[in-house]
Amino acid sequence: MSKIVNYELITSTSNIQADMYGSRAKCLQRLIRLGLPVPQSVALSVPFVNSIALGKSIDLKKLVTCFPNSPIISVRSSPVSAEWGGPSTILNIGMNSEIEKVYSNTLGSFAARELHIKFIKSFAIEVMRLDDEIFDHINITPEVAIDAYEQEIAECFPRTIEAQLSEVLKSMSRAWQGTSARLLRASKGAADDAGLGLVVQQMAFGLGKGESGAGVIQFVDSDTGIKREIGRYLSQSQGRDALINKKAAIFLTKDERGPSLEDTQPDIFYELTKAGVNCSKGLKEEMQIEFTLQNGRLFILDAIPTPRNALAAVEVVTSLVKEKIISKKEALLRIDPKSLSDLLHQQVAPGSIRNIISKGIAASPGASTGKLVFSSLAAQVSAAKSESCILVRRETTPEDIRGMHVANGILTERGGNTSHAAVIARGLGLPCVSGALGIKVDPKQKSLVTEDGRIFVEGDLITLDGTAGEVLEGKVPLVSVGLMDSFYTLMKWSDEFRDIGIRVNADTPQDAGVASKFGVEGIGLCRTEHMFFAEERLTVLREAIFANSSLDRATALERILPMQRKDFSALFKIMAPLPVCLRLFDPPLHEFLPNSRAGVQQLAEAMNLTLKEVQERIEGLSEFNPMLGMRGVRLGITVPEIYEMQARAIFEAVIDIAISSKQNIVPEIMIPLVSAKREVELVKSSIDSVAKQVSEEFGCSIDYKLGVMVETPRAALRAGEISKDVTFFSFGTNDMTQMTYGLSRDDAGRFMSNYVSQGVFEEDPFHILDRDGVGELLSLACERGRETNKNLTLSVCGEHGGDPESIEFCRALGMDYVSCSPYRVPVAKLAAAQLAIINK
Amino acid sequence: MSKIVNYELITSTSNIQADMYGSRAKCLQRLIRLGLPVPQSVALSVPFVNSIALGKSIDLKKLVTCFPNSPIISVRSSPVSAEWGGPSTILNIGMNSEIEKVYSNTLGSFAARELHIKFIKSFAIEVMRLDDEIFDHINITPEVAIDAYEQEIAECFPRTIEAQLSEVLKSMSRAWQGTSARLLRASKGAADDAGLGLVVQQMAFGLGKGESGAGVIQFVDSDTGIKREIGRYLSQSQGRDALINKKAAIFLTKDERGPSLEDTQPDIFYELTKAGVNCSKGLKEEMQIEFTLQNGRLFILDAIPTPRNALAAVEVVTSLVKEKIISKKEALLRIDPKSLSDLLHQQVAPGSIRNIISKGIAASPGASTGKLVFSSLAAQVSAAKSESCILVRRETTPEDIRGMHVANGILTERGGNTSHAAVIARGLGLPCVSGALGIKVDPKQKSLVTEDGRIFVEGDLITLDGTAGEVLEGKVPLVSVGLMDSFYTLMKWSDEFRDIGIRVNADTPQDAGVASKFGVEGIGLCRTEHMFFAEERLTVLREAIFANSSLDRATALERILPMQRKDFSALFKIMAPLPVCLRLFDPPLHEFLPNSRAGVQQLAEAMNLTLKEVQERIEGLSEFNPMLGMRGVRLGITVPEIYEMQARAIFEAVIDIAISSKQNIVPEIMIPLVSAKREVELVKSSIDSVAKQVSEEFGCSIDYKLGVMVETPRAALRAGEISKDVTFFSFGTNDMTQMTYGLSRDDAGRFMSNYVSQGVFEEDPFHILDRDGVGELLSLACERGRETNKNLTLSVCGEHGGDPESIEFCRALGMDYVSCSPYRVPVAKLAAAQLAIINK
Repeated sequence: MSKIVNYELITSTSNIQADMYGSRAKCLQRLIRLGLPVPQSVALSVPFVNSIALGKSIDLKKLVTCFPNSPIISVRSSPVSAEWGGPSTILNIGMNSEIEKVYSNTLGSFAARELHIKFIKSFAIEVMRLDDEIFDHINITPEVAIDAYEQEIAECFPRTIEAQLSEVLKSMSRAWQGTSARLLRASKGAADDAGLGLVVQQMAFGLGKGESGAGVIQFVDSDTGIKREIGRYLSQSQGRDALINKKAAIFLTKDERGPSLEDTQPDIFYELTKAGVNCSKGLKEEMQIEFTLQNGRLFILDAIPTPRNALAAVEVVTSLVKEKIISKKEALLRIDPKSLSDLLHQQVAPGSIRNIISKGIAASPGASTGKLVFSSLAAQVSAAKSESCILVRRETTPEDIRGMHVANGILTERGGNTSHAAVIARGLGLPCVSGALGIKVDPKQKSLVTEDGRIFVEGDLITLDGTAGEVLEGKVPLVSVGLMDSFYTLMKWSDEFRDIGIRVNADTPQDAGVASKFGVEGIGLCRTEHMFFAEERLTVLREAIFANSSLDRATALERILPMQRKDFSALFKIMAPLPVCLRLFDPPLHEFLPNSRAGVQQLAEAMNLTLKEVQERIEGLSEFNPMLGMRGVRLGITVPEIYEMQARAIFEAVIDIAISSKQNIVPEIMIPLVSAKREVELVKSSIDSVAKQVSEEFGCSIDYKLGVMVETPRAALRAGEISKDVTFFSFGTNDMTQMTYGLSRDDAGRFMSNYVSQGVFEEDPFHILDRDGVGELLSLACERGRETNKNLTLSVCGEHGGDPESIEFCRALGMDYVSCSPYRVPVAKLAAAQLAIINK
Repeated sequence: MSKIVNYELITSTSNIQADMYGSRAKCLQRLIRLGLPVPQSVALSVPFVNSIALGKSIDLKKLVTCFPNSPIISVRSSPVSAEWGGPSTILNIGMNSEIEKVYSNTLGSFAARELHIKFIKSFAIEVMRLDDEIFDHINITPEVAIDAYEQEIAECFPRTIEAQLSEVLKSMSRAWQGTSARLLRASKGAADDAGLGLVVQQMAFGLGKGESGAGVIQFVDSDTGIKREIGRYLSQSQGRDALINKKAAIFLTKDERGPSLEDTQPDIFYELTKAGVNCSKGLKEEMQIEFTLQNGRLFILDAIPTPRNALAAVEVVTSLVKEKIISKKEALLRIDPKSLSDLLHQQVAPGSIRNIISKGIAASPGASTGKLVFSSLAAQVSAAKSESCILVRRETTPEDIRGMHVANGILTERGGNTSHAAVIARGLGLPCVSGALGIKVDPKQKSLVTEDGRIFVEGDLITLDGTAGEVLEGKVPLVSVGLMDSFYTLMKWSDEFRDIGIRVNADTPQDAGVASKFGVEGIGLCRTEHMFFAEERLTVLREAIFANSSLDRATALERILPMQRKDFSALFKIMAPLPVCLRLFDPPLHEFLPNSRAGVQQLAEAMNLTLKEVQERIEGLSEFNPMLGMRGVRLGITVPEIYEMQARAIFEAVIDIAISSKQNIVPEIMIPLVSAKREVELVKSSIDSVAKQVSEEFGCSIDYKLGVMVETPRAALRAGEISKDVTFFSFGTNDMTQMTYGLSRDDAGRFMSNYVSQGVFEEDPFHILDRDGVGELLSLACERGRETNKNLTLSVCGEHGGDPESIEFCRALGMDYVSCSPYRVPVAKLAAAQLAIINK
């Protein structure tokens, strides 16, 4: 075994690297360099701690000599990354009866005895893992405590500092290897063999003569990031006792509610605030400081970055930039992009009591409270009365869209993270829990039965926590996060650095409005069929679907034409001069047909058909695997009237805008579900001929860009020939994932969690883009598409467009932009900026 | 323009190539070389005929000088390939009043006049496309005919041979370019610019003094291929009149029914039979000869390969080999592999009257007549009464299997060429028409309504023509083709030459029995779930599906275990020592649940549950896209008890055989629907542990081969890592095609014919393997799989395994074998042999 560095005294000149000694050791060295009064500290190296965990015997005599005679010390964990947590600090190591006597002189006998008892208890409980009940005595003394210990464990309590320290180090190093510690740090992204260092520190007691005590101070508000000193101080205490025992503790700054450190120890307070400023400048971060007064003298024992929520984090980094402490780049890198989505939604107030009805998939973030409704109609009735409601369905279908638009949250019994409910809810920025475990929805009875048999009926209040994926009983306090200027500042900085475009998936002017608040470079995906969900349109569309002849169908579609033209005009107007990419009608027709008996009857009446006729036609349109059936371009080619109407509506909208706003729009038209080149040729020639007609009718030239939604493996493989006729590809990664795995997103819910937990799939591929399989197809398609067509524009418009890891992959493939739902735009922008900064 | 060769006199030494002058010119030269009395013939080249079609003026004076003074000639088409057809022969060109007088001397005035009238009529009708009604005169003379012609067309009838010939050549060359001729020859595989030559031949009249007449003779039976002279001869006739007017014509060989050529002209008959022998030796083919007697002298005007059905074709080529005229290789190359499937089924007798009820997809070949039944139960009742029945369903499901097994044919309203009905029917060798257009099946009313409103009810007789894809009213005569020795000889020869293995997809001992008649190298795919369809097993399986706990499930499956063991033992016994590849349970569980109310009720009773409970559980198992849902290895991992039971059944069967037959079986176990390496690892470790248990229990070692059914695009892409743990890949090309295109085979029926006819897809990819897309994935998978695992065995076991073009592709990829349904084995064998011969 090669010789390893065991430990190092932390001084301003010693060589303390975080990857060797851990982040706490490094941080303490920085505090020392800033001239702060840090007690003598020794850093134990990661390999040394590792060897202790492996049972290697260690000689601590020399280590102890780093500290003055009769030392009392503490051990703190120092993981390589501060986020990984680590075993709790053990204080007062070195105490025994002799040492107690020594310290009785300096601290007083009461304090010395207290320290002794504290150590025995914490050694027994934290290190030896004994039950704290053994110390349930009214009058505990060190002797009583040691007796209790020795009775319990049938071993002598270690008396020498070396023996005590040895046990502490063994315990802490082993705890780091335990399953729960591993799981905990794995959730923060730590590798399985993540390293732990330790810091052995001379005690500052906080107990004894003169002003002694301990406290914690921070200099920004954890909830808002706004600058102010916050904390508590408790006389005759150690560590973080002041925070645990807030009632006894005093404020730091002058406060009406009681005494403060600023009142009682103005010099100390001044010294602390100065330390805070030093820290923020020196460590380029807002720190929370753990301090101790010993006989009126200040010691700074530790400092960690001030804990903060997403809002505060944004405020802190923008402040640091304004103070010229960090650069914009640094600020952008410090924010976790995924945390930004928390800022855009209401959340359950921290610390609220959660009476959980069911857990499901956290399908769309945010929280809301409302009355249960079990149908789209009931949701609309509720909205008409201005009552907040949660729409509950087994699963949602396009028929539910109107209800979803007015509901305050969506709960489904079935479906996964990319089910209809989930996708629509994210688009609408509504909280959604899908695939809620154990609940049974009965739409007829208008009731919901939980796994344990509780029944909730229409009108009952529930709270949906879409961030946590929980359904909560009754009303639960919610907090709304107001976006501050700093948020928009961060967005602006993101735009300065990122080198991949961000567009939005927006189907309606409302969506487009939300997105333009955040700033986007256009609409990357407008699902034009979503515009058919309005009641009067749905009826006309159904007539078109049921038409017996091409002429009848065209006649019905002619009534839809002006509506679609209006839709497109509105979108063009909001977005101009930014581009708008319109995907032609995609879903199977039967999605637009009623699936309830009442709906069928209504349709029969409207269309003057018998119930049986309507049912037969609906059955005739039903499919075994709708995802793989007559939809997308297949529908466009088989029933060409729909695409012709849409193309005309687009071109007429372009002319509308040209006349009304003098803006020259070049619409982007995208063909869905392509699998063969000839499909593109046929649609192109049909759109070209509509363009020619419209251009002749209105006497002006019409330009447009044609593109393909690449979402079948075959389209990816044949990208070389498909790219010839088009100007852009946009990857539909949802469908591509479904087809590459042979896995329906709506049906995956039943086994996906099992699969991910068994490691069959490393991640849910509908959540994180599968680079190995789906990714290879994307990569092939990019390469082949650009080989044939150098100027081909490439993008992703599937759900992955808003996921940072997927954006990284798209950027690496040289894509021009990603497109995501409105509320994912800030996440995507920041992630893109970080990638550009890291990879430049 | 470069000088083109215009024409060439056909002599035994002239340079006549089929690609320059067409196949008929080449054939005539061969007849001349054989010393047969062929009249003077001139071959016009393809480019020359082409230039005529393009309107180039031609000088025919020199051409006419090839023939003696006052010539009368015919023009015959000579396409580059004989199969492509071509315009009809025009006879007697050169006739006019003067020539008529000349020939009156040699032929007699009646014959000369007849020839003149015949020419005028055929010129008017065939060349100038006039209506034949204009010649409806009782006493027609050349003068009357020419008058009628000139009145109709207001142009002079051409009198010189050059003028007449010019019009004939123009007409024939243009007819070749016509749409119907193009379509006709395209259906035979001709390219769009396929070439036509023409042959100008001195007439042998068949009319006039002495014995004059025409006839056709062939030397093998067109229906059986067995050698015998067959044909007719008619005095005072031309061309093929003897076949058109059979009543007036006489037999060729001695016949009880009347006079024969053998009686009346024994020398001529002898000369003809000698010509036949010469032809078969010289042309290495059985020819049909068109001959003419002119004043007692024999002329042979033309010869074509004798028309024959598939059975006769096989008999002919094997005879030619036995006579040492052609080699085995040549014999194998002459049979169209696809034609062999006709031999294995009953067919509608040629010439039968077809009262078509509906046309659909020709999903499984053969024909049968039976009473309509609308449920599996009714089919079984019918079978119990030994009544032939046709099972009619909207679409079939596994619940219908027992009915399908006993029915004589299957008709479905919905579904494509690879629907459940189609696949099962092909496996069972039953005729099937799927996706029948315009019919409405009402299982409750037990009726079928056609597009034109006719109603057929249970018990009505229909005939199903699965070869043509037609549903016929009533009973239609069927013919059964008995397989002759020559068929098995051909199979044996195929085995001698082919260099890719052929296995069979067989789920039952019956299937395996059929296949072993044809000779195979093992079972390539046994769908083990098909064994669950027997009534008593289905009930136990349903109990397993509905089990509330892992233990309950295992208990239910334990009852299935001995049944499966028996299945596997039987298959091993039939096939030993050939390998058997068993695919683990694949379909979604809900396929095994009842879908009728009666079925649900029955299940509720059997399982002591309420109707509502059963319905809820069934609903709970239903999926949006079952093809992409919880099936295959996903089910195997989520509900591990099923695979464990199957593995145990397999290993116990191996031990059964080892004990009873002293045969050492190494079973092949295949995992379906894999998309990630880890899936294989998990199943492998589970099977390994079952193998270990069984081996310990029985005290003997167990060996097995593990493989993956590669049927998702991802499995193909990740083949490099997936191949590490397995010994074989078998490509499931059905599913791979579905996922690569994003297209469900069951739902494709609604637009596939439209798509193929519009050329969107060149072929139905479920029929002919898509080399460009699916093929690339296969190719990638083969390459990557073998890169990691050099000894990896590769095969295809999807429906494409029996398709000659797909076999070609698989062979090119270096696959070890293909596996196909029993009745496709002969097709696959012959196709494989042809590939080996052509590519060696």
